[in-house]
Amino acid sequence: MTMANKNNGCVLWLTGLPASGKSTLAEEVCKVFESKGLAVEHLDGDKVREVFPQTGFDRASRNDHIRRMGFLASRLEKYGVIVVASFISPYQESRDSIRGMCKNFYEIYLNTPLEICKSRDPKGLYKLAMEGKILNFTGIQEPYEPPQQPQLVLDTSTLSIPQARDRILDLLYSVH
Amino acid sequence: MTMANKNNGCVLWLTGLPASGKSTLAEEVCKVFESKGLAVEHLDGDKVREVFPQTGFDRASRNDHIRRMGFLASRLEKYGVIVVASFISPYQESRDSIRGMCKNFYEIYLNTPLEICKSRDPKGLYKLAMEGKILNFTGIQEPYEPPQQPQLVLDTSTLSIPQARDRILDLLYSVH
Repeated sequence: MTMANKNNGCVLWLTGLPASGKSTLAEEVCKVFESKGLAVEHLDGDKVREVFPQTGFDRASRNDHIRRMGFLASRLEKYGVIVVASFISPYQESRDSIRGMCKNFYEIYLNTPLEICKSRDPKGLYKLAMEGKILNFTGIQEPYEPPQQPQLVLDTSTLSIPQARDRILDLLYSVH
Repeated sequence: MTMANKNNGCVLWLTGLPASGKSTLAEEVCKVFESKGLAVEHLDGDKVREVFPQTGFDRASRNDHIRRMGFLASRLEKYGVIVVASFISPYQESRDSIRGMCKNFYEIYLNTPLEICKSRDPKGLYKLAMEGKILNFTGIQEPYEPPQQPQLVLDTSTLSIPQARDRILDLLYSVH
């Protein structure tokens, strides 16, 4: 049984290109907190879109969507939930607006190089985007704006997932 | 300092026409829980729209918006927060989809008569809608679909706000 403790509330916001390793890493981080009996919620871009399929991929729709997720994260944080969010969230303006909503916000930038992400392409989406069969794909047609002042930068092409996970945990324990 | 207790989590969903008394009643219910040191979150239609101003008022946009709020409510409930939601939420389909997402969901229908709501008109919106200056206004141009099987029906033209508040508390204490 997990309990929310008001003092634990925080938002770990993983941002980066498609296939940079966000979801996998977020899941591993969540497992650690769950094993400690802490209240942790994983908000994942792909999974949330299944709940809200109508959200578009143009800049305004993406910003709106990310702001809504930020609002949700901020409410959960308020009640002591550790929120681990994995969203491409390509635009600085929406990430900044979430920072403004949250109390303990950590922007974690997965700067895995584009060429590595392209070669991983677990869902074949880069291929479809490069063939022009998907439009508005971040990294191909749409820009990814790297965080200006992230709390942590992780490259999952040089770090293993457990190593990257431990960096995140170290960050959190150093300040919490 | 309020603490979330997993056993307390529930969603009290107030639905009804504009000016039927939802927000006022929700605030009074929240005050009671807050005074007991319980974790309670008020999700209010008007306030949430300030955070997400781009949401439209057509049927699809409203349904999407209400589903998003339901998702938020369900996540908060999961961690022991008492969620008091006050939304017109005019369509049965979106209210039903929220019921499906939540564990302890109470649909509370404010059936204050339309004529009373019109005469209250605290923000002058009924007037603007009747003059055709606001479109898609529930109760004027758009239908309100009354709940088929609400857990509670309250008419704030015959009940005082404290009376209506106590009915909600009685409902909750009778099952929790």
